[in-house]
Amino acid sequence: MILLTPGDPAGIGPEVMLVAWRDRGPDVDAGLAGDPRIWSRAAERLKMDPSVLPLVGRPDDQLSVPDPGAPTLDGARLAWQALDEALEMAANRSAAAIVTGPISKKHMTEAGFPHAGHTEYLASAAGVPRVLMVMSDGDRFHVGLHTVHVPLRQVPDMLDENLMVQDLQLLQGFVSSLYPSVAVRLGVCGLNPHAGEGGLLGTEDTIVDRAVQLAMSHGLDATGPVPGDTVFAGLRDGQFDAVLAMYHDQGLAPFKVLHFDKGVNVTVGLPWVRTSPDHGTAFDIAGTGSANPDSARAALELARRLLAVSSGG
Amino acid sequence: MILLTPGDPAGIGPEVMLVAWRDRGPDVDAGLAGDPRIWSRAAERLKMDPSVLPLVGRPDDQLSVPDPGAPTLDGARLAWQALDEALEMAANRSAAAIVTGPISKKHMTEAGFPHAGHTEYLASAAGVPRVLMVMSDGDRFHVGLHTVHVPLRQVPDMLDENLMVQDLQLLQGFVSSLYPSVAVRLGVCGLNPHAGEGGLLGTEDTIVDRAVQLAMSHGLDATGPVPGDTVFAGLRDGQFDAVLAMYHDQGLAPFKVLHFDKGVNVTVGLPWVRTSPDHGTAFDIAGTGSANPDSARAALELARRLLAVSSGG
Repeated sequence: MILLTPGDPAGIGPEVMLVAWRDRGPDVDAGLAGDPRIWSRAAERLKMDPSVLPLVGRPDDQLSVPDPGAPTLDGARLAWQALDEALEMAANRSAAAIVTGPISKKHMTEAGFPHAGHTEYLASAAGVPRVLMVMSDGDRFHVGLHTVHVPLRQVPDMLDENLMVQDLQLLQGFVSSLYPSVAVRLGVCGLNPHAGEGGLLGTEDTIVDRAVQLAMSHGLDATGPVPGDTVFAGLRDGQFDAVLAMYHDQGLAPFKVLHFDKGVNVTVGLPWVRTSPDHGTAFDIAGTGSANPDSARAALELARRLLAVSSGG
Repeated sequence: MILLTPGDPAGIGPEVMLVAWRDRGPDVDAGLAGDPRIWSRAAERLKMDPSVLPLVGRPDDQLSVPDPGAPTLDGARLAWQALDEALEMAANRSAAAIVTGPISKKHMTEAGFPHAGHTEYLASAAGVPRVLMVMSDGDRFHVGLHTVHVPLRQVPDMLDENLMVQDLQLLQGFVSSLYPSVAVRLGVCGLNPHAGEGGLLGTEDTIVDRAVQLAMSHGLDATGPVPGDTVFAGLRDGQFDAVLAMYHDQGLAPFKVLHFDKGVNVTVGLPWVRTSPDHGTAFDIAGTGSANPDSARAALELARRLLAVSSGG
């Protein structure tokens, strides 16, 4: 079963996730985690029949469901509960994939959520040492991030050749699971402009170079450091099957300028599949019916494909 | 007159610049700066008649013209001489625009060239305090860089709100010169992921915020800090007319993934027009006829448009 969580019930999560569920393909076994009231209210707004929803969550009458656009502490707690329900079902194997709706870092922090976001929480809950955040267009444009939510100033000191090799292995595994017959070619971004231009523009690209050598000694097909301003054109043109970027904007600026509305965030390295739409809670348009469900649809579809592969289906 | 320089004579510069000249529109008054032997040899390789070339440079028999693909110290010196001829003609107003072919930083440095590249040399020669490097698709996608060729580690300490305002003024002026009737809307990138997320992911975005406020008090229409991974989708979709990025890969990774072969590098803030193709010397394919002249053509065309506007033509 693929579980969908609503994210913050005051955001666009419930509506776009519900549309994604409604528009799922045939033979997709999906459930809706989290307080059933969240989904029922979203269904009413969408003129869908709440009685057909595959609700698997427990209601919590201690908490009020917020109205769209008006986030509350209770709403953040409900988002957290839905996530924990999904984690529980993944742990006891009644769910094989989780597609998470967007949460608000600010409100989750106020509710005591001890992590920077979904990705960190799920990795911690699953007890895995390293996960890789990958942005995927669901087709041929996949970008992993060696560092994610850290100040740019800290990035140069965070590059680690051994972790980079782990990231490349995770990225290779992800692409292989989508395209089992492809010999995956990985491009690895340099950190500095022009990948350091032989040391003239910074020295850290030697770390990337060592990581690439090490990855190749482990049998990966890796190339780099490739300048960050050219490697994505190479990815677009099929020269690489995936790229590992060194930091957030380096990878996501080119990704989103090409695939703004259909990007899927994948957490690679968990014991189960996890995807999510590539947008935030968008409280300002929640409940207005104007939220674009494409990314949520793509997230569910990618979860389905990753499951089909892992189950040999 | 628009002057073209060959760049390093062992690179693809002479051939792509010559093709750009050949394919110029009607009424384009263009000259070829630098040692005439460079252009004549390129013309012979391209099966063009050398006698029709508008050669304006002086030969220097002390220097040998290198073969394509085999860069030499003499070649770097010839590239430098061509640049100085163009600068001289710009200074005495016999040229109003310069379109520069690509040089090799490595070989120029060996020849004693005291600058990181064309842009810095031209700014120094022109005696202007601040120039802005802009990458342009020649249409509606223009990206300026607040910092350019510096190690990523140094970028956070180089942000300067007053220089940022100057950059925004230069960027506004550039777009206005192309589209005089447009009220230019400028997007300004944040430095950190999510533009710092209110300080959770770095503090330097307050500098960007102050620069935006200051720019607005000077009458500019500026918005920011906008997260670096979303602002370029906004530019693509017409929400902005130009974007100022904080550093090299932040601006050029999204630019080049959209416009790899037709990008033009513009130096804004000089007393004359300067453009150049967005690629390097490509010594490995020089002379083979496989170099793509699109960017050189676009650079000449953009110089023509910028001149037409400045002369009221």
